[in-house]
Amino acid sequence: MPTQLVIPKHHGRTLLDIPDDQLSEILPVAKKLAKASGAENYNILQNNGRLAHQVVDHVHFHMIPKPNEKEGLGIGWPAKDTDMDGLKKLHEQLKSKM
Amino acid sequence: MPTQLVIPKHHGRTLLDIPDDQLSEILPVAKKLAKASGAENYNILQNNGRLAHQVVDHVHFHMIPKPNEKEGLGIGWPAKDTDMDGLKKLHEQLKSKM
Repeated sequence: MPTQLVIPKHHGRTLLDIPDDQLSEILPVAKKLAKASGAENYNILQNNGRLAHQVVDHVHFHMIPKPNEKEGLGIGWPAKDTDMDGLKKLHEQLKSKM
Repeated sequence: MPTQLVIPKHHGRTLLDIPDDQLSEILPVAKKLAKASGAENYNILQNNGRLAHQVVDHVHFHMIPKPNEKEGLGIGWPAKDTDMDGLKKLHEQLKSKM
């Protein structure tokens, strides 16, 4: 299954241009798509700005199945510093919620 | 600014494990984070499954600023076929909404 897209009706270039009520509808739809796809591994990706790989100037969310190492989304993660930072934050946030 | 995370309270490993009402809250929060960051270029990314780069088994959404080519998220996009397919779909979906 190729990449699927979820697109808000409201025209906007980036996330900041989309009203909250429309943003709220997107992830439940992405979840339905993911379920329908049967994919066990997949990524949800939304790009804002040319530098961040946005090609089409209408906000859209990709649901990208990753059936194996070669297909789907390959990511080059930020520098190790950022990654550790992210993991620490995640840990703290998870703790505060449990 | 490093990667920021938005995390649903409900514990779940993948998107399919999170109730819709909690999913609905995520993107408006991500939008606030993006606005607060002042980033002009950024990616929203959520990974499901080891193969799809998920490291921590509690659903979380990354807001990853991309200040320049070297920092932030680098992506290796799916094969050209998938990309064209995605763009065609986007075009059709956009047309049907306009």
